[in-house]
Amino acid sequence: MRAYPLSRVYELIEQGPVVLLTTARKGRANVMTMSWHMMVEFEPPLVACVVSNANLSFAALRATRECVIAIPAARLVRQVVQVGNVSGRDLDKFERYGLTPLPAKRVSAPLIAECFANLECKVTDTRFVGKYGLFILEVVKAWTDPRQKHPKMLHHRGYGSFVVDGRTIKVKSGKP
Amino acid sequence: MRAYPLSRVYELIEQGPVVLLTTARKGRANVMTMSWHMMVEFEPPLVACVVSNANLSFAALRATRECVIAIPAARLVRQVVQVGNVSGRDLDKFERYGLTPLPAKRVSAPLIAECFANLECKVTDTRFVGKYGLFILEVVKAWTDPRQKHPKMLHHRGYGSFVVDGRTIKVKSGKP
Repeated sequence: MRAYPLSRVYELIEQGPVVLLTTARKGRANVMTMSWHMMVEFEPPLVACVVSNANLSFAALRATRECVIAIPAARLVRQVVQVGNVSGRDLDKFERYGLTPLPAKRVSAPLIAECFANLECKVTDTRFVGKYGLFILEVVKAWTDPRQKHPKMLHHRGYGSFVVDGRTIKVKSGKP
Repeated sequence: MRAYPLSRVYELIEQGPVVLLTTARKGRANVMTMSWHMMVEFEPPLVACVVSNANLSFAALRATRECVIAIPAARLVRQVVQVGNVSGRDLDKFERYGLTPLPAKRVSAPLIAECFANLECKVTDTRFVGKYGLFILEVVKAWTDPRQKHPKMLHHRGYGSFVVDGRTIKVKSGKP
């Protein structure tokens, strides 16, 4: 993994990819699938996300105030669905689905080696957790895998259906 | 426009499309481009979005507590960029960029005829507006254009660069 500038985190998140969220609590790591997230501020990069209190990750995120947002390319679609369908209460999802946890630098939650980007996050605001499960995260360290040159993101359409990134359009973005 | 079930709004929003946000205040409609939004609840559908207080839309949204989230297909990419590059203080963006406002049913902000989906929204929580510009919206009525059969969404990558929806993958989503 190579360090990625915090000022460019929004270019990843605002595209709306499906992500994997890792946490670690009492020496045990867990991972869930998530699509409910958005950018809140460019720099330092703030990200909001919604995690249901039915998820094991909710308690870990609230207690430890740390997580990693890992962004999978399209080839990981099967694992993304599998991770989203079971609870970490029942099994070690990393081991079961062939995802490799790597130590992060600033948080105890692990990076995921197979993901092309990993964002180490600290929870900075929990005032909307009770009502909406909405956490405000600050991205404190970001990584990308230089071996994955042109990763295609996944976008969730519901019920195991995903749209994969297609072509790129560039439009001159100056004032008219 | 045809009514679209509120229970399926998340299938549109959680994919992370670039959207247009319309407001209306003192008889004058405005429109901005937005990528910072996410689902918060399935039904009634709640959506969070971040609007900078530098935007004219911010004041209108805060004062009227109403807006429309309109989702453009890829063919509108030029208008999406143009709308995002100028302020409604300076001109009527609907007229200038060939976007047609249509009356909504539950809010005073207009639908956009050219967009394939339109979500009428009411602001339900403003407690995070001061700190983050973060509004909680409830979608109270949703529409889709039946003539746009397989619209491709746009996802913003920064600086006028957009990824267009590509192929769809379906993965069996039952328990493993």
